Amino acid sequence: METVTLNDKLEILLDGSVTTPRGFTAGAVHVGVRTDWDKLDVGIVASEVPCVAAATYTRNRVPGASLVVSKQHIAAGPVQAVVANAGCANAATGKQGMGDAAEMCRLTAKKLGIDSEAVVVASTGVIGAYLPMGRIGLGIEKIELSADGGLDFAKAIMTTDTRPKHIAVRHGGWSIGGVVKGVGMIHPNMATMLCFVTTDAAVAQPFLQASLKEAVDSSFNMIDVDSDTSPDDIALVMANGLAGGDELHELHVGAGAFAAGLKHVCTHLAKAMVADAEGASKVIQATVTGAASLGDARLAAREIIRSVGVKTAIYGLDPNWGRILSAIGNSEAAVDEYRTKLSFLGPDGSEVCVFRDGAPMSYDAAKAKACLEPRDVMIRVDMGLGEGAATAWGSDLTEEFVRLNSVYTT
Amino acid sequence: METVTLNDKLEILLDGSVTTPRGFTAGAVHVGVRTDWDKLDVGIVASEVPCVAAATYTRNRVPGASLVVSKQHIAAGPVQAVVANAGCANAATGKQGMGDAAEMCRLTAKKLGIDSEAVVVASTGVIGAYLPMGRIGLGIEKIELSADGGLDFAKAIMTTDTRPKHIAVRHGGWSIGGVVKGVGMIHPNMATMLCFVTTDAAVAQPFLQASLKEAVDSSFNMIDVDSDTSPDDIALVMANGLAGGDELHELHVGAGAFAAGLKHVCTHLAKAMVADAEGASKVIQATVTGAASLGDARLAAREIIRSVGVKTAIYGLDPNWGRILSAIGNSEAAVDEYRTKLSFLGPDGSEVCVFRDGAPMSYDAAKAKACLEPRDVMIRVDMGLGEGAATAWGSDLTEEFVRLNSVYTT
Repeated sequence: METVTLNDKLEILLDGSVTTPRGFTAGAVHVGVRTDWDKLDVGIVASEVPCVAAATYTRNRVPGASLVVSKQHIAAGPVQAVVANAGCANAATGKQGMGDAAEMCRLTAKKLGIDSEAVVVASTGVIGAYLPMGRIGLGIEKIELSADGGLDFAKAIMTTDTRPKHIAVRHGGWSIGGVVKGVGMIHPNMATMLCFVTTDAAVAQPFLQASLKEAVDSSFNMIDVDSDTSPDDIALVMANGLAGGDELHELHVGAGAFAAGLKHVCTHLAKAMVADAEGASKVIQATVTGAASLGDARLAAREIIRSVGVKTAIYGLDPNWGRILSAIGNSEAAVDEYRTKLSFLGPDGSEVCVFRDGAPMSYDAAKAKACLEPRDVMIRVDMGLGEGAATAWGSDLTEEFVRLNSVYTT
Repeated sequence: METVTLNDKLEILLDGSVTTPRGFTAGAVHVGVRTDWDKLDVGIVASEVPCVAAATYTRNRVPGASLVVSKQHIAAGPVQAVVANAGCANAATGKQGMGDAAEMCRLTAKKLGIDSEAVVVASTGVIGAYLPMGRIGLGIEKIELSADGGLDFAKAIMTTDTRPKHIAVRHGGWSIGGVVKGVGMIHPNMATMLCFVTTDAAVAQPFLQASLKEAVDSSFNMIDVDSDTSPDDIALVMANGLAGGDELHELHVGAGAFAAGLKHVCTHLAKAMVADAEGASKVIQATVTGAASLGDARLAAREIIRSVGVKTAIYGLDPNWGRILSAIGNSEAAVDEYRTKLSFLGPDGSEVCVFRDGAPMSYDAAKAKACLEPRDVMIRVDMGLGEGAATAWGSDLTEEFVRLNSVYTT
């Protein structure tokens, strides 16, 4: 597990979650959204007081009903609670789906004594099925909220995830906690993922939105499992200000630490998603330096970890670096093969350079294979063109992934 | 096998190939480009006289050496022969690779008594390895060209293909013949594919290029196996004019028949590639109608057959249409889910509508499953927005694909 601290003052709480920051409670119940599931499947996170909120959403053009409703509520102003369910995405469900999403907000608002518009709703699971609203209504009523309910909430949003994914960081007076779900349909620009982050810092909305976008761009938008996106993706951050202190904004002396903390939470959760990816045996980390721009570095790194050829080669412990070079060429990034250098990194930090100056390098095959054997496989690319640098993380592609994905619904 | 004729006058020759048109000869030998292969692996197609040529190329930004050399030769004017090898892509091979590609042209030109610049060279196989030029030189010398050598040439360019892919069509005085290889790294905008088409029609170059682009856009650019592209893709058409008759140009009365013939050849070969896709058990055909534009129809159809979620669901005989809708939303095509209709088509032509008016339809699960059982699975989407229509073809994703691709090189 990761225990590195970003700097002397940022404390990493690996057991932390959305209830680590002051004034947030959470809880979950099993209602049987899917009748064949025996797990927590409806959960709530609530703040004692209204929160400044920021969010990023799926780019899928057929968004689910819950997402449409949540987008309206977040745009309308402060939010105070999240209600989420797993097992049914409430997507492709038309007017009935819209009504069901609004009803989940209404029931949660009533329970908490707040306004419906202060509730964000999120649904994940099978597309094209209706929510069992009777059971969900009873479930929302039964949920008991507590200051240590964050882990239960993290479990309630899991679908094919094998473990809950959560973390918190603390810095001086404030903390940031987050949970995420999603192990399939994961692709740059988000996918079947729900991410909820809470903080007790006081944060101005424009700075909160900018910090979230920057954190998402270098974390959730840099991972890939299967190149699909889903109708329901959302990353939400809620700031309730209960830690006291100044309101953080772009020019505040504390802005950098908050942005770094949020990025750490998102990056940790993104990597946890890839590590738990459906059927995966490895986490492939592609680090690109020397790209003509940051954008180019991200394009190249993402295409490497998206490439089916790369994913299958790494699974097969095959240092087939031609597929890596081909993936870079397949991206929109500027590339000059005579200035490109490709290496595998070993777990001991040793580097096996396989391509440079436009030509294959002769290398020790045993050493290259040793770089591919660990669960974490590191690919290093220097494009030799500029200062752009980025890292992307992807799963490998296995027979087990195919088995899992060919029998998921019916 | 397909035996439908496009109209009364277009004759389909399923046994035809690049040597069907007058004045073309071909041949191939086994030279052992890969020492573990026992197959024909170097081949030549030659015309008695110089040909007007047109080509489309990979969009990969790290093109192979053979492609770079061929592009120069085709731009320089008429071409008269193609030399191709399988087993080694001659890509990521730097200056030595460029020299080797030029040498293959020089040796072929010498054998045929023509100019080096009149030779197109193509290489397919592993990236990042050098060509065994000694063996290839001897092989080129030994090749015997004949008027029935087209099938041997089709075999010589195969890599993981399990069967040669070839066809010809005849219309009045002229004929068009084609061969193709490629069953992995297949994606819209071409991939590890080599396609060579010959015709004895007399065709003006601008019309030949325009006809080829149109044919490629609706055939090779509408198929997907694994979303990768390769450094070596080329589709080349050579017209030697030996059928006599008028030179065909855009405004000639015979232009439509020629363009239709070329499109038929390319579409047949594209579908043959998908049918032979690595590890595939099915050909998924997605037909989109009612899109806002032709471009949107193509985007939506391609994203359906690219989606890993769709590919695995179809493999599992799972009518998980939510993934189809989600794939459409994942494309850049304009979509209104309340106007979108999704159906599966049965082999008997029956239609099982699963989604319309923004909501799931109740349907007979047994009938839906029956649509998924044949080798050819047909998905029909009406987007309800306009007149745009397109069809795309993709393979499913199987455990066997993963096995094949995790052990390919070393």
